Amino acid sequence: MSALTTEALDQLFIEARTHNGFAPEAIPEATLRRLYNLMKWGPTSMNCQPARLVFVTSAEGKEKLAPALSPGNLDKTLLAPATVIIATDTRFYEHLPTMFAAYDARPMFEGNAELATSTALRNGTLQGAYLILAARAIGLDCGPMSGFDAGKLNAAFFPDGRYQANFLCNLGVGDPGKLHPRGPRLSFEEACEIA
Amino acid sequence: MSALTTEALDQLFIEARTHNGFAPEAIPEATLRRLYNLMKWGPTSMNCQPARLVFVTSAEGKEKLAPALSPGNLDKTLLAPATVIIATDTRFYEHLPTMFAAYDARPMFEGNAELATSTALRNGTLQGAYLILAARAIGLDCGPMSGFDAGKLNAAFFPDGRYQANFLCNLGVGDPGKLHPRGPRLSFEEACEIA
Repeated sequence: MSALTTEALDQLFIEARTHNGFAPEAIPEATLRRLYNLMKWGPTSMNCQPARLVFVTSAEGKEKLAPALSPGNLDKTLLAPATVIIATDTRFYEHLPTMFAAYDARPMFEGNAELATSTALRNGTLQGAYLILAARAIGLDCGPMSGFDAGKLNAAFFPDGRYQANFLCNLGVGDPGKLHPRGPRLSFEEACEIA
Repeated sequence: MSALTTEALDQLFIEARTHNGFAPEAIPEATLRRLYNLMKWGPTSMNCQPARLVFVTSAEGKEKLAPALSPGNLDKTLLAPATVIIATDTRFYEHLPTMFAAYDARPMFEGNAELATSTALRNGTLQGAYLILAARAIGLDCGPMSGFDAGKLNAAFFPDGRYQANFLCNLGVGDPGKLHPRGPRLSFEEACEIA
């Protein structure tokens, strides 16, 4: 297996930016399905797949979302063609008997709330990152956000309490004119060690 | 921006697998640096970049790691050319004055342990997923693992308590003969909704 082309690495990582403005054209449902059908292959612990996605695309959906958004995220989110709620299924382990064939892992989580919570959060967040990179891989730009009121969002979208919002991500074709200046990154020496 | 080629999407998502065996050849330090210099560009909230990486490649490093590994992860990890500890810097916010120029965000986290912890975990985990996909993008295979004793690992590698292990990932050129059968994935209908 060799490295992807420079153009592909640029599109995924080096030139990709967090976007604040998007072209208004709707994202076809087929593209949202293609996105899920890529990101779903990313690895999770015991294939637990705790992420649940709500693609908010309609005016009604955006209206339901709006009261939960931080002021700085409101306008750009209302204008984005789609906003994904990356949520976590707190009872993800109910799917383990079909998703993980090696042994019955369900009791391991059912009987241990702390393990279930940390597993759900870690793996649901990994899946959120797979979503961001899968979106870029199919030519969409992303605007991930954690500035929102989770209590309000959960009450509006997940009233039975089973799913819990983790973070949000606007999707569309980005408007380079609305980019903020790019922040620096920690150097290898600051962030890494070889042992 | 258009979609990557089918081959690239296969390499990143569709054909990529969690590997349990790897060719024994060492990974050059230049490749580990290339990996970090790709994954570092992935987005984090306020550019907070809480992930810290320890690339365990030496016999001494593996010996230090071994007592913390679950029995099922021990042999394959000792044999992998590199094992990355994806850790979280609990005081990531000390870098914010240089990493996030918009305003001084440090006090926001310094004075709120709960916000600091959830921000560190969410964003450090996103960066762990960026690492997995960046590794695949440069032709490396991954074997991510959460089966280890975090207390023991932290005591051995991070005795001052500032960094905390999140998960581990073996890296190398995978041996297809050691793959487990692939688990299924939740369907779009099971995991997603359009609102």
